[in-house]
Amino acid sequence: MAADDATDRTPDAASDYPPAGDPQNAEERARRCAEVMYRADAASQRLGISIVEIAPGRAVATMTVRDDMVNGHGVCHGGFVFALADTAFAFACNSYGRVAVAAGADITFVQPAVAGETLTAEAVERIRYGRSGLYDVTVRGTDGRCIAEFRGRSRLMDRELLDG
Amino acid sequence: MAADDATDRTPDAASDYPPAGDPQNAEERARRCAEVMYRADAASQRLGISIVEIAPGRAVATMTVRDDMVNGHGVCHGGFVFALADTAFAFACNSYGRVAVAAGADITFVQPAVAGETLTAEAVERIRYGRSGLYDVTVRGTDGRCIAEFRGRSRLMDRELLDG
Amino acid sequence: MAADDATDRTPDAASDYPPAGDPQNAEERARRCAEVMYRADAASQRLGISIVEIAPGRAVATMTVRDDMVNGHGVCHGGFVFALADTAFAFACNSYGRVAVAAGADITFVQPAVAGETLTAEAVERIRYGRSGLYDVTVRGTDGRCIAEFRGRSRLMDRELLDG
Amino acid sequence: MAADDATDRTPDAASDYPPAGDPQNAEERARRCAEVMYRADAASQRLGISIVEIAPGRAVATMTVRDDMVNGHGVCHGGFVFALADTAFAFACNSYGRVAVAAGADITFVQPAVAGETLTAEAVERIRYGRSGLYDVTVRGTDGRCIAEFRGRSRLMDRELLDG
Repeated sequence: MAADDATDRTPDAASDYPPAGDPQNAEERARRCAEVMYRADAASQRLGISIVEIAPGRAVATMTVRDDMVNGHGVCHGGFVFALADTAFAFACNSYGRVAVAAGADITFVQPAVAGETLTAEAVERIRYGRSGLYDVTVRGTDGRCIAEFRGRSRLMDRELLDG
Repeated sequence: MAADDATDRTPDAASDYPPAGDPQNAEERARRCAEVMYRADAASQRLGISIVEIAPGRAVATMTVRDDMVNGHGVCHGGFVFALADTAFAFACNSYGRVAVAAGADITFVQPAVAGETLTAEAVERIRYGRSGLYDVTVRGTDGRCIAEFRGRSRLMDRELLDG
Repeated sequence: MAADDATDRTPDAASDYPPAGDPQNAEERARRCAEVMYRADAASQRLGISIVEIAPGRAVATMTVRDDMVNGHGVCHGGFVFALADTAFAFACNSYGRVAVAAGADITFVQPAVAGETLTAEAVERIRYGRSGLYDVTVRGTDGRCIAEFRGRSRLMDRELLDG
Repeated sequence: MAADDATDRTPDAASDYPPAGDPQNAEERARRCAEVMYRADAASQRLGISIVEIAPGRAVATMTVRDDMVNGHGVCHGGFVFALADTAFAFACNSYGRVAVAAGADITFVQPAVAGETLTAEAVERIRYGRSGLYDVTVRGTDGRCIAEFRGRSRLMDRELLDG
């Protein structure tokens, strides 16, 4: 039924995304979106997640693995690795000014993360189409080794993230 | 190259799993595996996760959504929903006496979970083959509505979970 | 941003699906949807796929592995195993009278399928919400062993599958 | 249980991959692997798939959408889009001289492909670890638009692809 996919992927549907405007405005809008989201996101704050880079369709987040995030083996519970990747994904797909939500995600666990190290999750937009988007997130350890590879699926809502 | 899959999926490979023994022993072994794992899993303990049912290839875990698990919208951060599902998955795939690890997982977010409600994640084994396994986990809210559907991929290690 | 998911998952959104009506009508409608789809689906016809069972949210499809579907090892190319599962999924998610499309799918290859055997793919609806759906498809060989496990993600379109 | 992942991801496990040798030899070996695989892969040949580029961990495959690959809407059945992506993935993960198999894959359908157009699938290795690998494949239409995004999961076997 792939033909019907087209109805969800016309230029009109694509234009559900706000016009990018000039690059400088797009960068500024992405920063404002991140500020609005982060202020509201108590969970990410309490996980100690910081958004260290933000741009249209891109975000980098960091989190230090606390003792209360590790299991008895001294390695980070997969749920916290996912939470960091999911946060980077959320900031990247919400950088255009309109609210996007996580419809789902797939994660591959590559290497364990250990207590005390600072993880960095870099979310990069692979593609946007219609109201959907795909974002690839790589989580790395302090030494740069890959901890996990994540691919998030987003859907655009009918609400603006920024006022006015 | 699917033919080569067979080399990973022979009866010999399948027999990497300890013999089930009689059902009563298998149930007892699953309980002992869960006790050993839970004692070691400080992260799940600190998330307030309880293992309320355990059987060979099956686990049910519960977690109450705390204020520090919610974002500004008062709904549970996806990372904590994933953490609950991932924990139920880990207990289900480690119920045979040999250590299994999470190779990866896919999650679909169906409904938001709200602060204060108790989530229940039921992990059911879909299939085991060679050293691999697939487990489906459904996360439900206090009212029984579906919060998320999760499918975890496990790999068996060469280590026993239980001593002697 | 999970709260925003709610806007895609309200009872109103759920009602995008036509009312089920009485069970007998729902079964009859599912059969008519399958007839309309199969007539139009030259690819599935030419793959030798038959729809052997159909019901609301459920479909069973069969395909015999031809010599031109196998690789040099005499086993079925993964693309044809996927095609059978994808077809069962498409018929299951299009059984309500409104056009649904495949947004994506995940497949796990469990055992190779060999030339000459007849594969059976059973698609079962796991959940529908808003305009989305999840369908689990198990592909089995002639001897009933599991060949692959597939999970398809569907989206409902604004078009009717049946006239009048 | 992420700690146990380490047992599958030690330098020893990583060394299951043949030593890369000098770049020129690695390129030559990748070409020889592709020749051996393609000769054996009757299914890909009969689908009209050509391997147009090959390198260690990378492959580009093309396929023209035939009338017997389309459904009644004149668009390519998802199974054939998957088959092209799966073939590019297989050639990329089998470019090191040791047999690798497809353990599974996730595909997102972005745009329909139409009859008569030539699709190009580019497979790029995202990461290898232990005996596992992740490969991202993008399928594009004649005009370069994205048709599908695919992520394949590979496992290394204990068999050499090349003799001597």
